[in-house]
Amino acid sequence: MNIYDIAKLAGVSIATVSRVVNDSPKVSEKTKERVRQIMEENHYTPNVFARGLGLNTMRTVGIICPDVSDAYMAKAVAYLEKNLQGYGYDCILYCSGYDEEDKRQAVELILKKHIDALVLVGSDYAGQPGHDTDYVQEVSSQIPVFLINGYIDSDRIFCVLADDYQAVYDVTEELLLDGRKRIFFLSNSHSYSANQKRKGYEDALRAYQMPVLEELIFYSENSIHRTRDELLLRRNLTFDSVIATEDGLAIGAVKYARAIGLKIPEEVSIVGYNNSELSVSCEPELTSVDTRVEILCRKAIDSMMALLGGQKIEKKHMVRCYLVKRFSTDF
Amino acid sequence: MNIYDIAKLAGVSIATVSRVVNDSPKVSEKTKERVRQIMEENHYTPNVFARGLGLNTMRTVGIICPDVSDAYMAKAVAYLEKNLQGYGYDCILYCSGYDEEDKRQAVELILKKHIDALVLVGSDYAGQPGHDTDYVQEVSSQIPVFLINGYIDSDRIFCVLADDYQAVYDVTEELLLDGRKRIFFLSNSHSYSANQKRKGYEDALRAYQMPVLEELIFYSENSIHRTRDELLLRRNLTFDSVIATEDGLAIGAVKYARAIGLKIPEEVSIVGYNNSELSVSCEPELTSVDTRVEILCRKAIDSMMALLGGQKIEKKHMVRCYLVKRFSTDF
Repeated sequence: MNIYDIAKLAGVSIATVSRVVNDSPKVSEKTKERVRQIMEENHYTPNVFARGLGLNTMRTVGIICPDVSDAYMAKAVAYLEKNLQGYGYDCILYCSGYDEEDKRQAVELILKKHIDALVLVGSDYAGQPGHDTDYVQEVSSQIPVFLINGYIDSDRIFCVLADDYQAVYDVTEELLLDGRKRIFFLSNSHSYSANQKRKGYEDALRAYQMPVLEELIFYSENSIHRTRDELLLRRNLTFDSVIATEDGLAIGAVKYARAIGLKIPEEVSIVGYNNSELSVSCEPELTSVDTRVEILCRKAIDSMMALLGGQKIEKKHMVRCYLVKRFSTDF
Repeated sequence: MNIYDIAKLAGVSIATVSRVVNDSPKVSEKTKERVRQIMEENHYTPNVFARGLGLNTMRTVGIICPDVSDAYMAKAVAYLEKNLQGYGYDCILYCSGYDEEDKRQAVELILKKHIDALVLVGSDYAGQPGHDTDYVQEVSSQIPVFLINGYIDSDRIFCVLADDYQAVYDVTEELLLDGRKRIFFLSNSHSYSANQKRKGYEDALRAYQMPVLEELIFYSENSIHRTRDELLLRRNLTFDSVIATEDGLAIGAVKYARAIGLKIPEEVSIVGYNNSELSVSCEPELTSVDTRVEILCRKAIDSMMALLGGQKIEKKHMVRCYLVKRFSTDF
């Protein structure tokens, strides 16, 4: 059911439907009521095209992220908002939490606002084994959906993401060339992006004929002290390097190494992820992967505006990461 | 000019004005146009009471902060959003930047949205010498304004703030009792809250008959490396302790102390502010003032809802800070 069907059923032009959607004073209350009733009966939520046809779009974009107090998401929301502001758009922010049902509900709720497009921040919306993404697919049939750092293969879901697979593949390779033999993979999530990182790690090991050892793949909470303590409980497990999927996890490993007297980077090399302020707070300062979230967000909003302006855009845009080398590695 | 004046001029009831504001279908287009024209001619922007009278408030609150990628503001926005969500309210987020003119414009823009109340995050909106707060005062005549961690003395501006004065007074006192004689005050701002902190520092010194030395009061950018380098340029300046108004500044001081071989805390004690994740990232981990932003935000939204529900609320609510003691001090 689209705007054309509604127009046909109501016996009016699509421009009139659009005006009703925008509550234009040019349409009589009687017509408005009839059109609205037909929209309701057919469970039709006006989509971006309908609003695009009217003069009065709300110029508002919805942003949903699990938790804006997370440093990565906070940065992403800040850059998204700044770019939207540049185009004269406002943003409505929802923090959905990480729970599957809450995420679903947040998407449902924000759809009721008159938003022109939706941005989902973080790869937690891209699904993982056991969780489906039909709620994201569904909303994408109503308005364009942009995924920051996640990927869903669908016609109206536009994905802008860091090439996490390649970034971790490259770092693993550097560690192997540096002579490291037992590379510990430390993660806190099974999100799309965390899974890409793990795949990069495993593929690089395989490319160098190194075994992928289950004991060297570890999932912990993204908390500095918790990670340190988890590692202290497993101190008979040896490794000569760490690739962490978050800077906080890497700093947990730094604290562990200091606690048991391992020299960084001589005895253990440690690589963080996101190049956050944390990476320059610790001692030694962390080598960390910069996912270039500023570029990601800019690209997402530029594409969105092109799309809303009627242009065709790429469905998937990949941004290459940087490795920022500091003192926790010796390459 | 308020809703009563508009009703009188238009020759309708205030309920009708309220319905026009809410674009109720119960009012004829002709009346709507007349009322809207009178509102425009009189530069009247509907206030919360007008919307409160209608059934159709947008249940939306505006949040403005200078920069949501700042860790403190990100936390505040996350807690505000969560509390608003609990009451069934949405939030529109604007990041205004720090520039006076941009802040003024952000407030003007967000007022055009149908928000029920406005939250300003951070004491940058509370004015400082040379900057006035008339734009905040002005918006407060239209809708209730809540200031997080700032204070403006005005009838319709509600302030929820950490007791920064007392927190720094207490820390200064602890350092003095610990035998420290040259306490370095390191700040990055002249905001309301930064000024309260400085006042606490100076008053505690005076209470202990210690001189307030201009050379020991220093303003730097809130960047770890920048702060370290600024201090390295001034290494002939001696001090035996540091009170920083941000954790990032304190970590800059930690890096400076390590660079010139000063032992922490024996030779220099360092206290940070905000108890952010940074404070547990560095080495040694930082003693830091926890401003209890979760409590602040919860109090702000509870008060807002009480106010929107017609109750009287306090104009100023002060939250006491905690001092979280770690290894950068020896008390």
